Amino acid sequence: VHTVAQRMAWLAEIDTVMLDCDGVLWRGSAAIEGAAEAITALRRAGKRVVFVTNNSTKSRASYVHKVEETLGVKAAEEEILCSAHATAAYLQRRGVRGRVYVVGERGLCEELRAVGLETLGEEDGRIPFEASRFREEVDVPKDVVAVVVGLDTEVSYRKVAIAACLARRGPGVVFVATNKDVTFPGKDDLVLPGAGSVVAMVEAAAMRTVDATLGKPAQDMLDLADEAMTLDRSRTLMVGDRLDTDIAFGRRGGLRTLLVLTGVTSRAVAEALPKDEAPDHVLESIADILPLLA
Amino acid sequence: VHTVAQRMAWLAEIDTVMLDCDGVLWRGSAAIEGAAEAITALRRAGKRVVFVTNNSTKSRASYVHKVEETLGVKAAEEEILCSAHATAAYLQRRGVRGRVYVVGERGLCEELRAVGLETLGEEDGRIPFEASRFREEVDVPKDVVAVVVGLDTEVSYRKVAIAACLARRGPGVVFVATNKDVTFPGKDDLVLPGAGSVVAMVEAAAMRTVDATLGKPAQDMLDLADEAMTLDRSRTLMVGDRLDTDIAFGRRGGLRTLLVLTGVTSRAVAEALPKDEAPDHVLESIADILPLLA
Repeated sequence: VHTVAQRMAWLAEIDTVMLDCDGVLWRGSAAIEGAAEAITALRRAGKRVVFVTNNSTKSRASYVHKVEETLGVKAAEEEILCSAHATAAYLQRRGVRGRVYVVGERGLCEELRAVGLETLGEEDGRIPFEASRFREEVDVPKDVVAVVVGLDTEVSYRKVAIAACLARRGPGVVFVATNKDVTFPGKDDLVLPGAGSVVAMVEAAAMRTVDATLGKPAQDMLDLADEAMTLDRSRTLMVGDRLDTDIAFGRRGGLRTLLVLTGVTSRAVAEALPKDEAPDHVLESIADILPLLA
Repeated sequence: VHTVAQRMAWLAEIDTVMLDCDGVLWRGSAAIEGAAEAITALRRAGKRVVFVTNNSTKSRASYVHKVEETLGVKAAEEEILCSAHATAAYLQRRGVRGRVYVVGERGLCEELRAVGLETLGEEDGRIPFEASRFREEVDVPKDVVAVVVGLDTEVSYRKVAIAACLARRGPGVVFVATNKDVTFPGKDDLVLPGAGSVVAMVEAAAMRTVDATLGKPAQDMLDLADEAMTLDRSRTLMVGDRLDTDIAFGRRGGLRTLLVLTGVTSRAVAEALPKDEAPDHVLESIADILPLLA
Protein backbone atom coordinates (compact mmCIF):
# COMPACT_ATOMS: atom_id res chain seq x y z
CA VAL A 1 0.00 0.00 0.00
CA HIS A 2 1.43 3.31 -1.10
CA THR A 3 0.29 6.90 -0.64
CA VAL A 4 -0.64 8.98 -3.65
CA ALA A 5 2.52 11.03 -3.18
CA GLN A 6 4.65 7.87 -3.20
CA ARG A 7 2.95 6.67 -6.35
CA MET A 8 3.45 10.02 -8.04
CA ALA A 9 7.14 9.96 -7.19
CA TRP A 10 7.46 6.45 -8.51
CA LEU A 11 5.61 7.19 -11.74
CA ALA A 12 7.89 10.21 -12.28
CA GLU A 13 10.79 7.76 -12.58
CA ILE A 14 9.12 5.89 -15.45
CA ASP A 15 9.82 6.92 -19.02
CA THR A 16 8.25 4.05 -20.97
CA VAL A 17 4.83 2.58 -20.26
CA MET A 18 4.01 -0.78 -21.84
CA LEU A 19 0.29 -1.33 -21.97
CA ASP A 20 -1.39 -4.69 -22.39
CA CYS A 21 -4.54 -4.04 -24.44
CA ASP A 22 -7.46 -6.43 -23.82
CA GLY A 23 -8.58 -6.03 -20.22
CA VAL A 24 -6.53 -2.83 -19.79
CA LEU A 25 -7.55 -0.48 -22.64
CA TRP A 26 -10.63 -2.28 -23.91
CA ARG A 27 -12.73 -5.36 -23.56
CA GLY A 28 -13.48 -6.67 -27.05
CA SER A 29 -14.66 -3.65 -29.00
CA ALA A 30 -15.63 -1.54 -25.95
CA ALA A 31 -13.08 0.96 -24.63
CA ILE A 32 -12.44 0.95 -20.90
CA GLU A 33 -13.53 4.28 -19.47
CA GLY A 34 -10.69 6.75 -19.16
CA ALA A 35 -8.17 4.62 -21.09
CA ALA A 36 -7.84 7.10 -23.96
CA GLU A 37 -7.39 10.00 -21.52
CA ALA A 38 -4.74 8.04 -19.63
CA ILE A 39 -2.72 7.43 -22.81
CA THR A 40 -2.94 11.09 -23.79
CA ALA A 41 -1.90 12.20 -20.30
CA LEU A 42 1.03 9.75 -20.21
CA ARG A 43 2.28 11.07 -23.54
CA ARG A 44 1.80 14.66 -22.42
CA ALA A 45 3.88 13.87 -19.33
CA GLY A 46 6.69 12.89 -21.72
CA LYS A 47 6.35 9.13 -21.40
CA ARG A 48 6.63 6.80 -24.34
CA VAL A 49 3.60 4.51 -24.66
CA VAL A 50 3.99 1.03 -26.14
CA PHE A 51 1.15 -1.41 -26.75
CA VAL A 52 2.03 -5.02 -25.90
CA THR A 53 -0.48 -7.69 -26.76
CA ASN A 54 -0.55 -11.48 -26.91
CA ASN A 55 -3.50 -11.34 -29.30
CA SER A 56 -2.22 -13.03 -32.43
CA THR A 57 -5.15 -12.33 -34.73
CA LYS A 58 -3.94 -8.90 -35.77
CA SER A 59 -0.85 -7.50 -37.47
CA ARG A 60 0.85 -4.38 -36.18
CA ALA A 61 -0.86 -2.41 -38.95
CA SER A 62 -4.30 -3.61 -37.87
CA TYR A 63 -3.46 -2.80 -34.24
CA VAL A 64 -2.72 0.79 -35.21
CA HIS A 65 -6.20 0.85 -36.70
CA LYS A 66 -7.76 -0.89 -33.69
CA VAL A 67 -6.21 1.59 -31.20
CA GLU A 68 -7.48 4.53 -33.22
CA GLU A 69 -10.91 3.02 -33.83
CA THR A 70 -11.54 1.89 -30.25
CA LEU A 71 -9.86 4.71 -28.29
CA GLY A 72 -9.65 7.59 -30.77
CA VAL A 73 -5.93 7.77 -30.04
CA LYS A 74 -3.12 7.69 -32.63
CA ALA A 75 -0.48 4.99 -32.58
CA ALA A 76 2.49 4.15 -34.80
CA GLU A 77 3.44 0.64 -35.92
CA GLU A 78 6.72 0.98 -34.00
CA GLU A 79 4.68 1.37 -30.81
CA ILE A 80 2.98 -2.01 -31.25
CA LEU A 81 4.47 -5.24 -29.87
CA CYS A 82 2.21 -8.14 -30.79
CA SER A 83 2.65 -11.90 -30.77
CA ALA A 84 1.96 -12.22 -34.51
CA HIS A 85 4.92 -9.97 -35.26
CA ALA A 86 7.08 -11.66 -32.61
CA THR A 87 6.29 -15.04 -34.18
CA ALA A 88 7.36 -13.83 -37.62
CA ALA A 89 10.56 -12.37 -36.15
CA TYR A 90 11.28 -15.65 -34.33
CA LEU A 91 10.96 -17.71 -37.51
CA GLN A 92 13.14 -15.23 -39.37
CA ARG A 93 15.80 -15.43 -36.64
CA ARG A 94 15.74 -19.25 -36.85
CA GLY A 95 16.36 -19.01 -40.58
CA VAL A 96 13.01 -20.53 -41.54
CA ARG A 97 12.25 -19.96 -45.23
CA GLY A 98 9.44 -21.34 -47.35
CA ARG A 99 5.95 -22.62 -46.62
CA VAL A 100 4.36 -22.28 -43.18
CA TYR A 101 1.10 -23.92 -42.16
CA VAL A 102 -0.96 -21.54 -40.02
CA VAL A 103 -3.77 -22.30 -37.59
CA GLY A 104 -4.53 -18.65 -37.03
CA GLU A 105 -6.13 -15.57 -38.46
CA ARG A 106 -5.41 -13.03 -41.15
CA GLY A 107 -3.20 -10.68 -39.11
CA LEU A 108 -0.84 -13.51 -38.22
CA CYS A 109 -0.58 -14.53 -41.87
CA GLU A 110 0.12 -10.92 -42.84
CA GLU A 111 3.04 -10.67 -40.41
CA LEU A 112 4.45 -14.01 -41.61
CA ARG A 113 4.19 -12.95 -45.25
CA ALA A 114 5.86 -9.64 -44.39
CA VAL A 115 9.06 -11.56 -43.57
CA GLY A 116 8.88 -13.47 -46.85
CA LEU A 117 7.16 -16.67 -45.73
CA GLU A 118 4.42 -18.36 -47.73
CA THR A 119 1.37 -19.10 -45.59
CA LEU A 120 -1.02 -22.04 -46.00
CA GLY A 121 -4.20 -22.95 -44.17
CA GLU A 122 -6.26 -19.78 -44.24
CA GLU A 123 -9.00 -21.45 -46.30
CA ASP A 124 -9.00 -24.78 -44.48
CA GLY A 125 -11.57 -23.71 -41.91
CA ARG A 126 -14.08 -22.89 -44.63
CA ILE A 127 -13.89 -25.86 -46.96
CA PRO A 128 -17.02 -27.96 -46.48
CA PHE A 129 -16.19 -31.29 -44.98
CA GLU A 130 -17.85 -34.59 -45.75
CA ALA A 131 -17.77 -36.07 -42.24
CA SER A 132 -18.31 -39.66 -43.35
CA ARG A 133 -15.32 -39.40 -45.68
CA PHE A 134 -13.13 -37.14 -43.55
CA ARG A 135 -10.23 -39.57 -43.43
CA GLU A 136 -9.95 -39.32 -47.20
CA GLU A 137 -10.49 -35.57 -47.15
CA VAL A 138 -7.48 -34.50 -45.09
CA ASP A 139 -4.70 -33.63 -47.53
CA VAL A 140 -1.36 -32.78 -46.00
CA PRO A 141 0.60 -30.22 -48.08
CA LYS A 142 4.22 -30.91 -49.01
CA ASP A 143 7.42 -28.96 -48.27
CA VAL A 144 6.09 -27.26 -45.15
CA VAL A 145 8.91 -26.08 -42.88
CA ALA A 146 6.94 -24.70 -39.92
CA VAL A 147 3.58 -24.93 -38.17
CA VAL A 148 2.32 -21.81 -36.39
CA VAL A 149 -0.65 -21.94 -34.02
CA GLY A 150 -2.53 -19.00 -32.55
CA LEU A 151 -6.08 -17.97 -31.80
CA ASP A 152 -8.31 -18.97 -34.67
CA THR A 153 -12.08 -18.54 -34.60
CA GLU A 154 -12.19 -20.61 -37.79
CA VAL A 155 -10.32 -23.50 -36.20
CA SER A 156 -11.59 -26.75 -37.69
CA TYR A 157 -10.93 -30.46 -37.59
CA ARG A 158 -9.26 -30.27 -40.99
CA LYS A 159 -6.89 -27.50 -39.88
CA VAL A 160 -5.89 -29.26 -36.68
CA ALA A 161 -5.45 -32.58 -38.49
CA ILE A 162 -3.12 -31.05 -41.08
CA ALA A 163 -1.15 -29.02 -38.52
CA ALA A 164 -0.73 -32.09 -36.30
CA CYS A 165 0.36 -34.35 -39.18
CA LEU A 166 3.00 -31.79 -40.14
CA ALA A 167 4.23 -31.21 -36.58
CA ARG A 168 4.45 -34.95 -36.01
CA ARG A 169 7.17 -35.12 -38.67
CA GLY A 170 9.64 -33.97 -36.02
CA PRO A 171 12.18 -31.22 -35.40
CA GLY A 172 12.65 -30.56 -39.14
CA VAL A 173 9.28 -28.85 -38.96
CA VAL A 174 9.47 -25.88 -36.58
CA PHE A 175 6.40 -25.85 -34.32
CA VAL A 176 5.49 -22.61 -32.53
CA ALA A 177 2.62 -21.05 -30.60
CA THR A 178 1.98 -17.32 -30.82
CA ASN A 179 0.90 -17.38 -27.17
CA LYS A 180 -0.68 -19.70 -24.64
CA ASP A 181 -3.46 -17.67 -23.00
CA VAL A 182 -6.11 -20.35 -22.60
CA THR A 183 -8.93 -17.80 -22.35
CA PHE A 184 -9.73 -14.14 -22.79
CA PRO A 185 -12.65 -11.95 -21.76
CA GLY A 186 -15.67 -11.80 -24.09
CA LYS A 187 -18.78 -9.64 -23.79
CA ASP A 188 -20.41 -9.34 -20.37
CA ASP A 189 -19.00 -12.09 -18.16
CA LEU A 190 -18.27 -14.46 -21.00
CA VAL A 191 -14.80 -15.99 -21.04
CA LEU A 192 -13.78 -17.28 -24.48
CA PRO A 193 -11.19 -19.83 -25.59
CA GLY A 194 -7.80 -18.25 -26.28
CA ALA A 195 -4.85 -19.31 -28.40
CA GLY A 196 -3.69 -21.64 -25.62
CA SER A 197 -6.82 -23.76 -26.05
CA VAL A 198 -6.22 -24.13 -29.79
CA VAL A 199 -2.57 -24.94 -29.09
CA ALA A 200 -3.66 -27.62 -26.58
CA MET A 201 -5.66 -29.41 -29.29
CA VAL A 202 -2.88 -29.29 -31.88
CA GLU A 203 -0.25 -30.38 -29.35
CA ALA A 204 -2.43 -33.31 -28.24
CA ALA A 205 -3.05 -34.47 -31.81
CA ALA A 206 0.61 -33.95 -32.76
CA MET A 207 1.84 -35.71 -29.61
CA ARG A 208 4.44 -32.95 -29.51
CA THR A 209 4.77 -29.73 -27.53
CA VAL A 210 5.65 -26.51 -29.32
CA ASP A 211 9.31 -25.51 -29.65
CA ALA A 212 8.53 -21.98 -28.51
CA THR A 213 5.72 -19.73 -27.31
CA LEU A 214 6.18 -16.10 -28.31
CA GLY A 215 3.61 -14.22 -26.25
CA LYS A 216 4.02 -12.95 -22.70
CA PRO A 217 5.43 -14.13 -20.30
CA ALA A 218 8.11 -15.19 -22.84
CA GLN A 219 10.60 -12.38 -23.27
CA ASP A 220 10.68 -12.25 -27.08
CA MET A 221 8.54 -9.14 -27.39
CA LEU A 222 10.76 -7.37 -24.85
CA ASP A 223 13.84 -8.36 -26.83
CA LEU A 224 12.18 -6.94 -29.95
CA ALA A 225 11.49 -3.71 -28.06
CA ASP A 226 15.17 -3.56 -27.07
CA GLU A 227 16.12 -3.82 -30.74
CA ALA A 228 13.60 -1.25 -31.92
CA MET A 229 14.04 1.42 -29.24
CA THR A 230 16.39 2.44 -26.44
CA LEU A 231 14.84 0.90 -23.38
CA ASP A 232 15.93 1.49 -19.79
CA ARG A 233 14.22 -1.48 -18.17
CA SER A 234 14.40 -0.03 -14.67
CA ARG A 235 12.47 3.00 -15.95
CA THR A 236 9.90 0.93 -17.87
CA LEU A 237 6.46 0.05 -16.49
CA MET A 238 4.44 -2.94 -17.63
CA VAL A 239 0.68 -2.51 -17.13
CA GLY A 240 -1.57 -5.55 -17.39
CA ASP A 241 -4.61 -7.39 -16.11
CA ARG A 242 -3.13 -10.91 -15.98
CA LEU A 243 -0.63 -12.20 -13.48
CA ASP A 244 0.60 -15.22 -15.44
CA THR A 245 1.28 -13.26 -18.63
CA ASP A 246 1.58 -9.48 -18.09
CA ILE A 247 2.98 -9.27 -14.58
CA ALA A 248 5.22 -12.33 -15.04
CA PHE A 249 6.50 -10.77 -18.29
CA GLY A 250 7.37 -7.51 -16.54
CA ARG A 251 8.95 -9.18 -13.52
CA ARG A 252 11.10 -11.53 -15.59
CA GLY A 253 12.25 -8.65 -17.77
CA GLY A 254 13.28 -6.45 -14.86
CA LEU A 255 10.46 -3.94 -15.48
CA ARG A 256 8.26 -2.23 -12.91
CA THR A 257 4.76 -3.73 -12.87
CA LEU A 258 1.24 -2.38 -12.43
CA LEU A 259 -1.81 -4.62 -12.22
CA VAL A 260 -5.23 -3.21 -13.16
CA LEU A 261 -8.47 -4.88 -12.16
CA THR A 262 -10.48 -4.23 -15.34
CA GLY A 263 -9.64 -7.64 -16.78
CA VAL A 264 -9.37 -11.17 -15.45
CA THR A 265 -7.75 -10.64 -12.03
CA SER A 266 -9.75 -9.71 -8.92
CA ARG A 267 -8.42 -7.63 -6.02
CA ALA A 268 -8.80 -10.60 -3.68
CA VAL A 269 -6.53 -12.71 -5.87
CA ALA A 270 -4.02 -9.88 -6.27
CA GLU A 271 -3.83 -9.26 -2.53
CA ALA A 272 -3.34 -12.90 -1.64
CA LEU A 273 -0.19 -13.23 -3.76
CA PRO A 274 3.20 -14.00 -2.22
CA LYS A 275 5.63 -11.09 -2.51
CA ASP A 276 7.69 -12.70 -5.27
CA GLU A 277 4.67 -12.94 -7.59
CA ALA A 278 2.93 -9.69 -6.72
CA PRO A 279 2.93 -6.62 -8.98
CA ASP A 280 4.65 -3.49 -7.67
CA HIS A 281 1.35 -1.61 -7.76
CA VAL A 282 -2.36 -2.28 -8.16
CA LEU A 283 -4.93 0.18 -9.50
CA GLU A 284 -8.62 -0.37 -10.19
CA SER A 285 -8.20 0.89 -13.74
CA ILE A 286 -5.68 2.50 -16.06
CA ALA A 287 -7.85 5.61 -15.65
CA ASP A 288 -6.60 5.89 -12.06
CA ILE A 289 -3.17 6.78 -13.36
CA LEU A 290 -4.48 10.22 -14.35
CA PRO A 291 -4.41 11.88 -10.91
CA LEU A 292 -0.89 10.50 -10.37
CA LEU A 293 0.38 12.50 -13.34
CA ALA A 294 -0.76 15.92 -12.08
CA VAL B 1 6.98 -66.70 -27.09
CA HIS B 2 4.55 -69.59 -27.26
CA THR B 3 4.29 -72.57 -29.57
CA VAL B 4 1.23 -72.96 -31.77
CA ALA B 5 0.08 -75.86 -29.59
CA GLN B 6 0.33 -73.71 -26.46
CA ARG B 7 -1.62 -70.95 -28.13
CA MET B 8 -4.30 -73.38 -29.24
CA ALA B 9 -4.64 -74.73 -25.72
CA TRP B 10 -4.90 -71.27 -24.34
CA LEU B 11 -7.47 -70.12 -26.88
CA ALA B 12 -9.55 -73.20 -26.07
CA GLU B 13 -9.98 -71.79 -22.55
CA ILE B 14 -11.52 -68.56 -23.88
CA ASP B 15 -15.28 -68.29 -24.27
CA THR B 16 -15.71 -64.57 -24.95
CA VAL B 17 -13.58 -62.55 -27.36
CA MET B 18 -13.77 -58.77 -27.10
CA LEU B 19 -12.59 -57.13 -30.29
CA ASP B 20 -11.47 -53.56 -30.62
CA CYS B 21 -12.55 -52.41 -34.09
CA ASP B 22 -10.38 -49.71 -35.69
CA GLY B 23 -6.92 -51.14 -36.22
CA VAL B 24 -8.12 -54.69 -35.52
CA LEU B 25 -11.06 -55.35 -37.85
CA TRP B 26 -10.75 -52.39 -40.18
CA ARG B 27 -8.88 -49.21 -40.84
CA GLY B 28 -11.41 -46.50 -41.65
CA SER B 29 -13.71 -48.06 -44.22
CA ALA B 30 -11.27 -50.79 -45.34
CA ALA B 31 -11.62 -54.23 -43.76
CA ILE B 32 -8.42 -55.86 -42.51
CA GLU B 33 -7.79 -59.00 -44.51
CA GLY B 34 -9.12 -62.10 -42.82
CA ALA B 35 -11.00 -60.24 -40.07
CA ALA B 36 -14.42 -61.42 -41.23
CA GLU B 37 -13.21 -65.01 -41.50
CA ALA B 38 -11.73 -64.81 -38.00
CA ILE B 39 -15.04 -63.64 -36.51
CA THR B 40 -16.94 -66.39 -38.29
CA ALA B 41 -14.43 -69.02 -37.13
CA LEU B 42 -14.50 -67.76 -33.52
CA ARG B 43 -18.29 -68.01 -33.50
CA ARG B 44 -18.19 -71.44 -35.11
CA ALA B 45 -15.78 -72.53 -32.36
CA GLY B 46 -18.52 -71.57 -29.87
CA LYS B 47 -17.02 -68.30 -28.70
CA ARG B 48 -19.08 -65.20 -28.08
CA VAL B 49 -17.76 -62.19 -30.01
CA VAL B 50 -18.19 -58.68 -28.58
CA PHE B 51 -17.17 -55.48 -30.36
CA VAL B 52 -15.59 -52.90 -28.01
CA THR B 53 -14.81 -49.49 -29.42
CA ASN B 54 -13.80 -46.11 -28.06
CA ASN B 55 -15.10 -44.44 -31.23
CA SER B 56 -17.83 -42.12 -29.97
CA THR B 57 -19.23 -41.01 -33.30
CA LYS B 58 -21.56 -43.95 -33.71
CA SER B 59 -24.45 -45.45 -31.75
CA ARG B 60 -24.73 -49.19 -31.17
CA ALA B 61 -27.30 -49.33 -33.98
CA SER B 62 -24.91 -47.70 -36.43
CA TYR B 63 -22.14 -50.04 -35.33
CA VAL B 64 -24.29 -53.03 -36.20
CA HIS B 65 -24.60 -51.51 -39.66
CA LYS B 66 -20.87 -50.69 -39.87
CA VAL B 67 -19.84 -54.26 -38.95
CA GLU B 68 -22.15 -55.70 -41.59
CA GLU B 69 -21.20 -53.12 -44.24
CA THR B 70 -17.45 -53.36 -43.72
CA LEU B 71 -17.03 -57.05 -42.93
CA GLY B 72 -20.18 -58.67 -44.28
CA VAL B 73 -20.70 -60.20 -40.84
CA LYS B 74 -23.88 -59.97 -38.74
CA ALA B 75 -23.85 -58.38 -35.29
CA ALA B 76 -26.51 -57.65 -32.67
CA GLU B 77 -26.77 -54.42 -30.67
CA GLU B 78 -26.12 -56.42 -27.50
CA GLU B 79 -22.72 -57.40 -28.92
CA ILE B 80 -21.62 -53.77 -29.26
CA LEU B 81 -19.86 -51.91 -26.44
CA CYS B 82 -19.15 -48.34 -27.53
CA SER B 83 -18.15 -45.19 -25.69
CA ALA B 84 -21.24 -43.26 -26.86
CA HIS B 85 -23.49 -45.82 -25.17
CA ALA B 86 -21.24 -45.99 -22.10
CA THR B 87 -21.43 -42.19 -21.79
CA ALA B 88 -25.22 -42.25 -21.91
CA ALA B 89 -25.30 -45.03 -19.31
CA TYR B 90 -22.91 -43.06 -17.08
CA LEU B 91 -25.08 -39.94 -17.15
CA GLN B 92 -28.16 -42.04 -16.46
CA ARG B 93 -26.44 -43.68 -13.48
CA ARG B 94 -25.48 -40.26 -12.10
CA GLY B 95 -29.12 -39.19 -12.32
CA VAL B 96 -28.53 -36.52 -14.95
CA ARG B 97 -31.79 -35.37 -16.51
CA GLY B 98 -32.45 -32.54 -18.93
CA ARG B 99 -30.33 -30.66 -21.46
CA VAL B 100 -26.85 -31.81 -22.40
CA TYR B 101 -24.44 -29.82 -24.54
CA VAL B 102 -22.56 -32.11 -26.93
CA VAL B 103 -19.28 -31.57 -28.74
CA GLY B 104 -19.63 -34.75 -30.72
CA GLU B 105 -21.34 -36.44 -33.62
CA ARG B 106 -24.74 -37.84 -34.43
CA GLY B 107 -24.26 -41.33 -32.96
CA LEU B 108 -23.34 -39.89 -29.58
CA CYS B 109 -26.43 -37.65 -29.61
CA GLU B 110 -28.59 -40.66 -30.55
CA GLU B 111 -27.36 -42.66 -27.55
CA LEU B 112 -27.89 -39.69 -25.22
CA ARG B 113 -31.42 -39.13 -26.52
CA ALA B 114 -32.12 -42.86 -26.12
CA VAL B 115 -31.80 -42.43 -22.33
CA GLY B 116 -34.14 -39.44 -22.35
CA LEU B 117 -31.65 -36.57 -22.49
CA GLU B 118 -32.14 -33.52 -24.69
CA THR B 119 -29.04 -32.80 -26.78
CA LEU B 120 -27.81 -29.37 -27.88
CA GLY B 121 -24.92 -28.34 -30.06
CA GLU B 122 -25.26 -30.47 -33.16
CA GLU B 123 -25.81 -27.41 -35.39
CA ASP B 124 -23.17 -25.20 -33.77
CA GLY B 125 -20.38 -26.37 -36.05
CA ARG B 126 -22.30 -25.34 -39.13
CA ILE B 127 -23.59 -21.87 -38.24
CA PRO B 128 -21.54 -19.33 -40.19
CA PHE B 129 -19.49 -17.23 -37.88
CA GLU B 130 -18.73 -13.55 -38.29
CA ALA B 131 -15.15 -13.61 -36.99
CA SER B 132 -14.96 -9.87 -36.30
CA ARG B 133 -18.06 -10.11 -34.10
CA PHE B 134 -17.45 -13.55 -32.60
CA ARG B 135 -17.52 -12.33 -29.01
CA GLU B 136 -21.08 -11.18 -29.55
CA GLU B 137 -21.99 -14.32 -31.45
CA VAL B 138 -21.35 -16.91 -28.76
CA ASP B 139 -24.66 -17.56 -27.03
CA VAL B 140 -24.54 -19.87 -24.05
CA PRO B 141 -27.76 -21.89 -23.64
CA LYS B 142 -29.53 -21.99 -20.27
CA ASP B 143 -30.40 -24.93 -18.00
CA VAL B 144 -27.70 -27.21 -19.28
CA VAL B 145 -26.84 -29.96 -16.77
CA ALA B 146 -23.97 -31.71 -18.53
CA VAL B 147 -21.29 -31.20 -21.18
CA VAL B 148 -20.21 -34.25 -23.19
CA VAL B 149 -17.11 -34.17 -25.40
CA GLY B 150 -16.08 -36.76 -27.98
CA LEU B 151 -14.60 -36.91 -31.44
CA ASP B 152 -16.22 -34.26 -33.60
CA THR B 153 -15.13 -33.56 -37.15
CA GLU B 154 -17.37 -30.49 -37.05
CA VAL B 155 -15.66 -29.12 -33.94
CA SER B 156 -15.67 -25.33 -34.12
CA TYR B 157 -14.67 -22.31 -32.09
CA ARG B 158 -18.31 -21.66 -31.27
CA LYS B 159 -18.85 -25.21 -29.97
CA VAL B 160 -15.74 -25.20 -27.80
CA ALA B 161 -16.54 -21.73 -26.46
CA ILE B 162 -20.05 -22.76 -25.42
CA ALA B 163 -18.94 -26.09 -23.94
CA ALA B 164 -16.15 -24.38 -21.98
CA CYS B 165 -18.43 -21.62 -20.66
CA LEU B 166 -20.86 -24.26 -19.41
CA ALA B 167 -18.19 -26.51 -17.89
CA ARG B 168 -16.63 -23.51 -16.14
CA ARG B 169 -19.83 -23.16 -14.09
CA GLY B 170 -18.52 -25.89 -11.82
CA PRO B 171 -19.58 -29.28 -10.48
CA GLY B 172 -23.30 -28.53 -10.99
CA VAL B 173 -22.60 -29.13 -14.66
CA VAL B 174 -21.38 -32.71 -15.19
CA PHE B 175 -18.38 -32.71 -17.57
CA VAL B 176 -17.44 -35.95 -19.31
CA ALA B 177 -15.29 -37.23 -22.15
CA THR B 178 -16.39 -40.22 -24.21
CA ASN B 179 -12.73 -41.26 -24.51
CA LYS B 180 -9.27 -39.73 -24.60
CA ASP B 181 -7.54 -41.31 -27.59
CA VAL B 182 -5.57 -38.34 -28.90
CA THR B 183 -5.22 -39.84 -32.37
CA PHE B 184 -6.45 -42.64 -34.57
CA PRO B 185 -5.28 -44.09 -37.87
CA GLY B 186 -6.49 -42.44 -41.09
CA LYS B 187 -5.93 -43.54 -44.68
CA ASP B 188 -2.41 -44.65 -45.65
CA ASP B 189 -0.05 -43.50 -42.92
CA LEU B 190 -2.12 -40.52 -41.85
CA VAL B 191 -2.76 -40.18 -38.13
CA LEU B 192 -5.81 -38.05 -37.35
CA PRO B 193 -6.87 -36.15 -34.21
CA GLY B 194 -9.01 -38.26 -31.88
CA ALA B 195 -11.52 -37.39 -29.19
CA GLY B 196 -8.68 -36.76 -26.73
CA SER B 197 -7.47 -33.84 -28.84
CA VAL B 198 -10.92 -32.25 -28.84
CA VAL B 199 -11.18 -32.87 -25.09
CA ALA B 200 -7.78 -31.18 -24.59
CA MET B 201 -9.09 -27.99 -26.20
CA VAL B 202 -12.32 -27.90 -24.20
CA GLU B 203 -10.52 -28.70 -20.93
CA ALA B 204 -7.99 -25.92 -21.59
CA ALA B 205 -10.68 -23.35 -22.34
CA ALA B 206 -12.83 -24.52 -19.42
CA MET B 207 -9.84 -24.53 -17.06
CA ARG B 208 -11.33 -27.77 -15.74
CA THR B 209 -10.60 -31.44 -16.31
CA VAL B 210 -13.44 -33.83 -17.09
CA ASP B 211 -15.17 -35.66 -14.22
CA ALA B 212 -14.93 -38.96 -16.09
CA THR B 213 -13.64 -40.56 -19.27
CA LEU B 214 -15.76 -43.50 -20.42
CA GLY B 215 -13.67 -45.18 -23.12
CA LYS B 216 -10.94 -47.77 -22.59
CA PRO B 217 -8.84 -48.06 -20.45
CA ALA B 218 -11.66 -46.95 -18.07
CA GLN B 219 -13.64 -49.98 -16.95
CA ASP B 220 -17.14 -48.65 -17.61
CA MET B 221 -17.70 -50.65 -20.81
CA LEU B 222 -16.59 -53.80 -19.01
CA ASP B 223 -19.04 -53.08 -16.18
CA LEU B 224 -21.77 -52.66 -18.80
CA ALA B 225 -20.80 -56.01 -20.31
CA ASP B 226 -21.08 -57.58 -16.87
CA GLU B 227 -24.61 -56.21 -16.56
CA ALA B 228 -25.68 -57.28 -20.04
CA MET B 229 -24.18 -60.78 -20.16
CA THR B 230 -22.65 -63.43 -17.93
CA LEU B 231 -18.95 -62.80 -18.21
CA ASP B 232 -16.22 -65.02 -16.82
CA ARG B 233 -13.35 -62.56 -16.93
CA SER B 234 -10.66 -65.23 -16.69
CA ARG B 235 -12.13 -66.82 -19.83
CA THR B 236 -12.47 -63.53 -21.72
CA LEU B 237 -9.92 -62.27 -24.24
CA MET B 238 -9.44 -58.60 -25.14
CA VAL B 239 -7.97 -58.09 -28.61
CA GLY B 240 -6.63 -54.67 -29.53
CA ASP B 241 -4.00 -52.66 -31.38
CA ARG B 242 -3.28 -50.06 -28.68
CA LEU B 243 -1.38 -50.63 -25.47
CA ASP B 244 -2.65 -47.59 -23.56
CA THR B 245 -6.32 -48.28 -24.23
CA ASP B 246 -7.04 -51.88 -25.31
CA ILE B 247 -4.35 -53.84 -23.51
CA ALA B 248 -4.56 -51.64 -20.39
CA PHE B 249 -8.35 -52.11 -20.40
CA GLY B 250 -7.99 -55.89 -20.53
CA ARG B 251 -5.24 -56.06 -17.92
CA ARG B 252 -7.09 -53.83 -15.45
CA GLY B 253 -10.26 -55.84 -15.91
CA GLY B 254 -8.58 -59.19 -15.32
CA LEU B 255 -9.04 -60.33 -18.92
CA ARG B 256 -6.54 -62.17 -21.12
CA THR B 257 -5.01 -59.86 -23.70
CA LEU B 258 -3.93 -60.17 -27.32
CA LEU B 259 -2.15 -57.40 -29.20
CA VAL B 260 -2.38 -57.28 -33.00
CA LEU B 261 0.01 -55.25 -35.13
CA THR B 262 -2.45 -54.03 -37.77
CA GLY B 263 -3.00 -50.71 -35.98
CA VAL B 264 -0.83 -48.21 -34.13
CA THR B 265 1.61 -50.47 -32.26
CA SER B 266 4.76 -51.91 -33.88
CA ARG B 267 6.36 -55.22 -32.94
CA ALA B 268 9.47 -53.40 -31.73
CA VAL B 269 7.41 -51.36 -29.24
CA ALA B 270 5.47 -54.43 -28.12
CA GLU B 271 8.61 -56.50 -27.52
CA ALA B 272 10.34 -53.76 -25.52
CA LEU B 273 7.56 -53.60 -22.91
CA PRO B 274 8.16 -54.51 -19.26
CA LYS B 275 6.30 -57.64 -18.23
CA ASP B 276 3.64 -55.78 -16.24
CA GLU B 277 2.52 -53.81 -19.31
CA ALA B 278 2.89 -56.47 -21.97
CA PRO B 279 -0.06 -58.29 -23.55
CA ASP B 280 -0.34 -62.04 -22.96
CA HIS B 281 0.02 -62.69 -26.69
CA VAL B 282 0.99 -60.85 -29.85
CA LEU B 283 -0.17 -61.74 -33.37
CA GLU B 284 0.50 -59.92 -36.64
CA SER B 285 -3.21 -59.79 -37.36
CA ILE B 286 -6.54 -61.06 -36.11
CA ALA B 287 -6.45 -63.30 -39.18
CA ASP B 288 -3.67 -65.27 -37.51
CA ILE B 289 -6.14 -66.56 -34.96
CA LEU B 290 -7.67 -68.81 -37.65
CA PRO B 291 -5.05 -71.62 -37.60
CA LEU B 292 -5.25 -71.64 -33.78
CA LEU B 293 -8.92 -72.62 -33.93
CA ALA B 294 -8.42 -75.75 -36.02
